[in-house]
Amino acid sequence: MVTPPDIVRAAYASLVVTSLSAARHFWVDLLGFVVTYEDARSLYLRGYDELTHHNLILRSGPEAAAGALGFRVRSGDDLARASAFYQALGCRTERLPAGTVRGTGEVVRVEDPLGFLIDFFASSAHPQRLQQRYDLRRGAEVARLDHFNICVPDVPAAYSYYSSLGFGLSETIEDGQTLYAAWMYRKQTVHDVAFTGGAGPRLHHLGFFAHEPHSVLRMCDILGSLSRQSCIERGPGRHGVSNAFYVYLRDPDGHRVEIYTSDYYTGDPDHPALRWSVHDPRRRDFWGNAVIPSWYTQASVVLDLDGAVRPVTDIAQTAEVTVGADGFTAPPPAPVPPSAPPAPPR
Amino acid sequence: MVTPPDIVRAAYASLVVTSLSAARHFWVDLLGFVVTYEDARSLYLRGYDELTHHNLILRSGPEAAAGALGFRVRSGDDLARASAFYQALGCRTERLPAGTVRGTGEVVRVEDPLGFLIDFFASSAHPQRLQQRYDLRRGAEVARLDHFNICVPDVPAAYSYYSSLGFGLSETIEDGQTLYAAWMYRKQTVHDVAFTGGAGPRLHHLGFFAHEPHSVLRMCDILGSLSRQSCIERGPGRHGVSNAFYVYLRDPDGHRVEIYTSDYYTGDPDHPALRWSVHDPRRRDFWGNAVIPSWYTQASVVLDLDGAVRPVTDIAQTAEVTVGADGFTAPPPAPVPPSAPPAPPR
Amino acid sequence: MVTPPDIVRAAYASLVVTSLSAARHFWVDLLGFVVTYEDARSLYLRGYDELTHHNLILRSGPEAAAGALGFRVRSGDDLARASAFYQALGCRTERLPAGTVRGTGEVVRVEDPLGFLIDFFASSAHPQRLQQRYDLRRGAEVARLDHFNICVPDVPAAYSYYSSLGFGLSETIEDGQTLYAAWMYRKQTVHDVAFTGGAGPRLHHLGFFAHEPHSVLRMCDILGSLSRQSCIERGPGRHGVSNAFYVYLRDPDGHRVEIYTSDYYTGDPDHPALRWSVHDPRRRDFWGNAVIPSWYTQASVVLDLDGAVRPVTDIAQTAEVTVGADGFTAPPPAPVPPSAPPAPPR
Amino acid sequence: MVTPPDIVRAAYASLVVTSLSAARHFWVDLLGFVVTYEDARSLYLRGYDELTHHNLILRSGPEAAAGALGFRVRSGDDLARASAFYQALGCRTERLPAGTVRGTGEVVRVEDPLGFLIDFFASSAHPQRLQQRYDLRRGAEVARLDHFNICVPDVPAAYSYYSSLGFGLSETIEDGQTLYAAWMYRKQTVHDVAFTGGAGPRLHHLGFFAHEPHSVLRMCDILGSLSRQSCIERGPGRHGVSNAFYVYLRDPDGHRVEIYTSDYYTGDPDHPALRWSVHDPRRRDFWGNAVIPSWYTQASVVLDLDGAVRPVTDIAQTAEVTVGADGFTAPPPAPVPPSAPPAPPR
Repeated sequence: MVTPPDIVRAAYASLVVTSLSAARHFWVDLLGFVVTYEDARSLYLRGYDELTHHNLILRSGPEAAAGALGFRVRSGDDLARASAFYQALGCRTERLPAGTVRGTGEVVRVEDPLGFLIDFFASSAHPQRLQQRYDLRRGAEVARLDHFNICVPDVPAAYSYYSSLGFGLSETIEDGQTLYAAWMYRKQTVHDVAFTGGAGPRLHHLGFFAHEPHSVLRMCDILGSLSRQSCIERGPGRHGVSNAFYVYLRDPDGHRVEIYTSDYYTGDPDHPALRWSVHDPRRRDFWGNAVIPSWYTQASVVLDLDGAVRPVTDIAQTAEVTVGADGFTAPPPAPVPPSAPPAPPR
Repeated sequence: MVTPPDIVRAAYASLVVTSLSAARHFWVDLLGFVVTYEDARSLYLRGYDELTHHNLILRSGPEAAAGALGFRVRSGDDLARASAFYQALGCRTERLPAGTVRGTGEVVRVEDPLGFLIDFFASSAHPQRLQQRYDLRRGAEVARLDHFNICVPDVPAAYSYYSSLGFGLSETIEDGQTLYAAWMYRKQTVHDVAFTGGAGPRLHHLGFFAHEPHSVLRMCDILGSLSRQSCIERGPGRHGVSNAFYVYLRDPDGHRVEIYTSDYYTGDPDHPALRWSVHDPRRRDFWGNAVIPSWYTQASVVLDLDGAVRPVTDIAQTAEVTVGADGFTAPPPAPVPPSAPPAPPR
Repeated sequence: MVTPPDIVRAAYASLVVTSLSAARHFWVDLLGFVVTYEDARSLYLRGYDELTHHNLILRSGPEAAAGALGFRVRSGDDLARASAFYQALGCRTERLPAGTVRGTGEVVRVEDPLGFLIDFFASSAHPQRLQQRYDLRRGAEVARLDHFNICVPDVPAAYSYYSSLGFGLSETIEDGQTLYAAWMYRKQTVHDVAFTGGAGPRLHHLGFFAHEPHSVLRMCDILGSLSRQSCIERGPGRHGVSNAFYVYLRDPDGHRVEIYTSDYYTGDPDHPALRWSVHDPRRRDFWGNAVIPSWYTQASVVLDLDGAVRPVTDIAQTAEVTVGADGFTAPPPAPVPPSAPPAPPR
Repeated sequence: MVTPPDIVRAAYASLVVTSLSAARHFWVDLLGFVVTYEDARSLYLRGYDELTHHNLILRSGPEAAAGALGFRVRSGDDLARASAFYQALGCRTERLPAGTVRGTGEVVRVEDPLGFLIDFFASSAHPQRLQQRYDLRRGAEVARLDHFNICVPDVPAAYSYYSSLGFGLSETIEDGQTLYAAWMYRKQTVHDVAFTGGAGPRLHHLGFFAHEPHSVLRMCDILGSLSRQSCIERGPGRHGVSNAFYVYLRDPDGHRVEIYTSDYYTGDPDHPALRWSVHDPRRRDFWGNAVIPSWYTQASVVLDLDGAVRPVTDIAQTAEVTVGADGFTAPPPAPVPPSAPPAPPR
């Protein structure tokens, strides 16, 4: 087996938007992202804690889609390892000289086996440090990119591929037959990437980290104030998986973004995976709130190396939405007889 | 017109529960209410800030129902005014000597024109002050009873009746034809009583005040921890009406309770009412989240002076749930084109 | 005895500042107050929940001082009662026609027996309602004026005078000999006015209400971000008295402002006063943090009806700062042997 | 140079306490630590997120002291590396068979060059997962051990030694001449270890991570409720260094503990160190609150391999407390003229 690159973390994503001004209003004016650079056709944005050039690139284009998802690797040598790794898999790869992606050193860009465009980079320009500029914080007060969530027709295949890239497994949704979803990490959090079973390749959402639940609530309040509440697709709530407090929003092109806070440390070498039954109504929302069907079914198409939209393949396994009793088709919650509380822990 | 009693605030409610041990587990162990007194057939509970004997009486009985709703009046003279006021309306009234309601002075109990059992009392025993006993706080850390929300077939009739009792109007949901809901207050908050259009008389919910949104979120987390998430009926969320942060729970008998925080001061004599269009999807949830139909349709039956369940009359006006686009029948939220933000204020 | 006016609440204050631009930067840009009106010599500010014209008037002048403290009264008849009440006390009074105080109906302005300039008004222009404009909130996200805290040489005299005005007593600091401080209310909160023993008449601070502790913390974070941390005089902390979460700031002229949240309801007719021993180190800060001496000794001088600074009289009783073991002269906290916890409540 | 062990993170600490029952009351009843194991002479405690056997061992003994500080290493091979590394430095080392430290695999215990007892271990028993047992959370709701802060007479020597162990540098306090303090990490947070210049070797404090500022505030509220406020030595506040929200407590033996939340990700390979001037009054408290002198001067003595208290050597460099203008000797904060805000960022 070819040695994979040493991936540090999910670092940036690129989205094609059909109106850059509408996207700017959403991401900068409402969500409060920091602008590192902008011109007539693109915006480079970052969170308040981010110390690389950008977490998000928005580009104007004729059709909404997701471009490359960027992983930072440990060193320049890992770029060569990335090229070799994907060439061994028979994937198309490109080397983009430093500066081709603005503010970023050399990039190895690949079409990965799942059909996503992935960037690997080792170095980045450092922007101004704004972590303690509370006077500037607005919107969701996003700190940094946390993770990518991708729709794949075959979740076990995605799990195997990311395992071969050295990702650890933190949590799953499963039953005896099927792996419905999985969360995998390189940095010491619950995930850098997660898989939602569905037609793919598509980008399900980008997850951004905020420091406090307050930021999630306030983001919703602001959207309500401006009659933009329809941007709120699901939540706020507490996830079962990851234990994070979250809300899902949709941008003007329908790209989904999660504001995400309060997950946990996964850096120990024997970190045990947490496996949720697909029948546990708390797995997606720890409070048992129904998951809106659009959350399961809608996602962003992705581009290939030639800039064309990748064709989408239907889901190849049982869909979680048809099994988990958490959709809008579920009966309304009813009072239940009190059960004995769990035994006290030791 | 007869002078109404000078009502201070919504002070206590009485619920009949079919299992006192199940109710105790819910209200005391999970929600964290303070027990002032208990015996084999009843529980007297209060919030941590409460300085009267109880906010809630739970009584064991064969059928779940709501008993009396208790308003505190300013002085003993107001008890006589209450008797006279309701006798003038042709309502049945009773005088209960001090101690008949435990910990409470003399009570005037009436069957009001809307069909609810109402207690008026002027004096109460003072329990131990626990406001600053943070070491004891558990669950939702409820401070005190905030309001009653009642289902009535004819909202304008309820509005007129409570106006005649000296209640102020803080907010409404309406359109050109119909008053769908109204919020009315005596103490200097958004409400002591609110009306939900529906079959009635029924008790829609009891609202309890907590000091911080954190308590609302934590209550839900605890219910999830114990696999009691089905108790969470709606929320958490931000109300449009009242601006409060809220969650609705259902007790083991289906009685609905709201944990409610962060509404606003209404004590100025010319306090202006805020009128919401029934078509504003933010009126019930400022974030536009769908209202589950059970929230509109289910409620607790109420008792009469003889202890019998009052018959329920169907709604006599257009039901809000059939008009407001916020039920589960609503299309899923879709991204909207950005609109111009509101003009800056002056 | 002459009938006092029916006071609704502490409503506005007027401060003379030596640089209106520096004051604007502090109150508007940093603290986030809403500007209702401004011109070259004055600023009219309000909190986000306020539905009268202003909570704070800042006027440019040669010497920093506090002008009138404004109480709203229930009706126009109370203006006549106010005039009569103070004339009976031998105080100077004035009637200012509607509009003399901008946005405000007729005002009765008096020099009260304690030496403060007090405005009484019954009506006000209603500004735009901004309660739910979360998109506009900045700084401390102040909702409304909560209270005045005044320095008086004789606390019992101040207590008697405000009692005669119909104020209720919520809390005190005292010992067998001396009443060191008292908190008194008209609206249903802990106070509209409080007395700090000291040279007077001086304005100790203006207290503004915020909805969440988060706002207190964030205000401090913003001041630190801008290297304006020296504006933070004391706190953040939890008060023993009032149980509120607080911070004290000083404006560029040294006027003190408190951001204050989470006190409690006091509207019941028999609301019991809470009496703190001056020897309880938790009375001023429930966490036992030392009170900086400047907080006890510094305050704003006040103006008389002629616009002149009132001479200040020394404290006429034992000063709390010399008794309470909570100044900077206190020994540093030391570990204590564990004591038995308080008995469980009933 | 000998290869250092691959250290994963600060994992546990051991403290000798003079009364195990008093310590249990403080750490378990008040702070809410989870008991993994206890017997008559020892307590093994962990935070709610911890998935190894313990974060803290309390042992009964005649004199309060700190025992071993435990670092988890990546694999069993790292234990051999640890032995070799310290033997090459001429340090005493021991190998403790699995189970010698309860719930823990083989341990290499060393007397490190700074005079501290350090444990290295690779494997641990997994206790019950309590991350989502919100029903059990009490006190400070501590998630896990975050860091050790140690007093050393020579901060540059400590920095060099921990650099040789592969720790990264996140922040410093310094001036042209002197390195006063430094923060260093292995896991992807601001630190696993930090150095406070002072007589040493002594343990300055143990830092435990909580998920929300609320937990810090609530811990203080609980201590005030029980008249245990003298346990609160410093804070709550926002650190300049680390940006964390914090409070320092002292246990019944004077051992110092920090409740710490909201620091930031440091996992990027080129993570830039943040260097604070010792003259910046925000470095220790971002809000400029004075640091109480005991915080600079008091700390816990440490044991050697024979169980004897290590002699303490005086500080060998300028003490920060004599330079930084943040002690109780500082003049009280005074209003400052407004300065221009920082330029907007890019």
